[in-house]
Amino acid sequence: MPALANKSYFNYGGQGPLPQPSLEAIITSWQKIQELGPFTNKVWPYVNDEIEATRNMLAEICGVSKRRIGFTENVTSGCVLPLWGLTFSEGDRILISDCEHPGIVSACKELARRKSLYIDIFPVQHLHQGVNNSHELNDQLLKGLDFALNPKTRLVVLSHLLWNTGVITPIPSVAEKLNKHTNKPFLLVDAAQSFGQLPIAEAASLADIYAFTGHKWACGPEGLGAVAISPRVLGASNPTLIGWRSLKSEGSIYENNPNPFHEDARRFEVATSCIPLFAGLRSSLKLMEKEGTVTQRLHQIQRMSKALWSQLKGINGVNPILEGPPASGLISFSVASKYSSKEIVKILGRQNLWIRLLEDPTWLRACVHITSNTDEINKLVKSLNDLTKEI
Amino acid sequence: MPALANKSYFNYGGQGPLPQPSLEAIITSWQKIQELGPFTNKVWPYVNDEIEATRNMLAEICGVSKRRIGFTENVTSGCVLPLWGLTFSEGDRILISDCEHPGIVSACKELARRKSLYIDIFPVQHLHQGVNNSHELNDQLLKGLDFALNPKTRLVVLSHLLWNTGVITPIPSVAEKLNKHTNKPFLLVDAAQSFGQLPIAEAASLADIYAFTGHKWACGPEGLGAVAISPRVLGASNPTLIGWRSLKSEGSIYENNPNPFHEDARRFEVATSCIPLFAGLRSSLKLMEKEGTVTQRLHQIQRMSKALWSQLKGINGVNPILEGPPASGLISFSVASKYSSKEIVKILGRQNLWIRLLEDPTWLRACVHITSNTDEINKLVKSLNDLTKEI
Repeated sequence: MPALANKSYFNYGGQGPLPQPSLEAIITSWQKIQELGPFTNKVWPYVNDEIEATRNMLAEICGVSKRRIGFTENVTSGCVLPLWGLTFSEGDRILISDCEHPGIVSACKELARRKSLYIDIFPVQHLHQGVNNSHELNDQLLKGLDFALNPKTRLVVLSHLLWNTGVITPIPSVAEKLNKHTNKPFLLVDAAQSFGQLPIAEAASLADIYAFTGHKWACGPEGLGAVAISPRVLGASNPTLIGWRSLKSEGSIYENNPNPFHEDARRFEVATSCIPLFAGLRSSLKLMEKEGTVTQRLHQIQRMSKALWSQLKGINGVNPILEGPPASGLISFSVASKYSSKEIVKILGRQNLWIRLLEDPTWLRACVHITSNTDEINKLVKSLNDLTKEI
Repeated sequence: MPALANKSYFNYGGQGPLPQPSLEAIITSWQKIQELGPFTNKVWPYVNDEIEATRNMLAEICGVSKRRIGFTENVTSGCVLPLWGLTFSEGDRILISDCEHPGIVSACKELARRKSLYIDIFPVQHLHQGVNNSHELNDQLLKGLDFALNPKTRLVVLSHLLWNTGVITPIPSVAEKLNKHTNKPFLLVDAAQSFGQLPIAEAASLADIYAFTGHKWACGPEGLGAVAISPRVLGASNPTLIGWRSLKSEGSIYENNPNPFHEDARRFEVATSCIPLFAGLRSSLKLMEKEGTVTQRLHQIQRMSKALWSQLKGINGVNPILEGPPASGLISFSVASKYSSKEIVKILGRQNLWIRLLEDPTWLRACVHITSNTDEINKLVKSLNDLTKEI
């Protein structure tokens, strides 16, 4: 991984490094497309195989049939595109957690504005239990959900792994609860931080919209994501951003065809995408599989995050958000220092240590992955120790 | 151009070949992002420069200020995304030409279904004048437009270069006419076939939505397009597919900000895209600029298309659609042969000659570009001659 050769990297939750073999797979695919095409009868079987091989791989990871997987450019598109085709009644409510990404929050607000819906906030940011107290956390979250749900709630938006606190939410239990609720609200799950890091099959198969990207924890190329869609959303939501890939057939479009769209998740695909990226994503996923099952990899990540979390906790002036060892590789913390959090990111950057600033609340976030090592964790801890000593 | 090394290629209107230096620019950009990032303070200036250098280049080609240029994944996204934010009243009408791409037609039909609008068809497919009779064609088209417009027409959809007939439409005159019409309908122009082939500044600056892709006539990579948006659409249309790139700021999203979106065309950008593609598109555009101004290049294309059109006209059983030499590199024709049009594409493909089948109407289409040569044109003509002789 060339990106890791010259730095200590802790921003897997922002973007994962691209392994050299994956870049080579992308280049090889580009060359193949030029050799066979780019637009010839010879190239179509290759393009189709690339797409379907990737779809099969993602379907297996998500524990769903391949007809439920649609490709998108990024996680936001996967979250938002299926939403606009759902039917809402005036006065319906969207329940959105207070740990969602600005993109999806703004999209829901615009949806609410146009369709005269209400937005309710589901507070989960205060949940700080670590991996050892996940039962307690789940109980609290589900009680909070009971309290936040309204008879008019039509959609619930909740990330699988909260991008700011690093908490894993009990998506299967949430899905079960929503299924018993009067209105059977749709469950939209932002899986930006979970795909490539956690076992997701149960959550992905039970959510209505489970959207993810390949370029974070899966270490694939930027510009390719996907979404797993439930049968009921496939039946209920027409596509909004419609292109040739949404359509069963390109013929007879001026005729009156009441149902021109694919019945599977391809209805939410649009038009030309960058095909070489598909080989890159598969390459990265295969490289990760070689390192162990997803559960084994998560345990490895948890070992590293526990090491970092424990050492951070030991620094005077550094306060990890989670009260126990993290359930994932995402570790957020606040710092008491004469430097602002923004300055700390810059100073660490000058030392070639890369973590990120979170804006709301103002926290710092360091991520560890299976590629992380003790040496770089110790470096980060030492630097943070130095930066807080100088108060 | 590796794609041209092993075949005679006539599908520039489907996808252009990627020059080797452009692939190399993409790879170099990927390596640079890994070296600096992928997610660090060091990489952001580079990423920003890549995006803005490309935006400046496209703004210049489109003859508009850079604030009017937004990036998209493909031409469909550029056409459709700004549409969903426009305000329509029940009963408003969309006038769409009978030569539009299935994607945009289906998107307009879905828009009409959801917002209770009517679709009218604007017939332009019957216009078959060549480059020498473009005044006559423009007159006919504008008269047809007068006839097709309705006081309730709110949106007109017309391609700049019709993808099936190869006719160039007089977008500036159409814009002028619409501007004088009661309802001042919005003008959406599908520029899939014009960008990279024709001078577009006048049309792009006068249309409300002028959407194009880099991967056809501009010979850029697949997966990157853009759209030029008029000031009035920027003011009237909120984004629908909203992500972090649509937002002025990622902070304070739970607060009540009535106008969180960029005021410029970035409001229609979404989230993470494949940044290395930007270097590839600029490389291809620069390579073309080296071959002459866009007018010089169009003249070269017209010389080649005239040569092909004339020879096709000379074959018994081959009927070019246009009555005179084409105004662009797009040449459609019907064939009387014992083989179906679909079979002809296959047979030619076995001879390494690549043209495409159009479905509605069933025509064949061959495109020539500045990379085309007389030798391959002669080969195509000879093969078509053989295929029609055998009737």
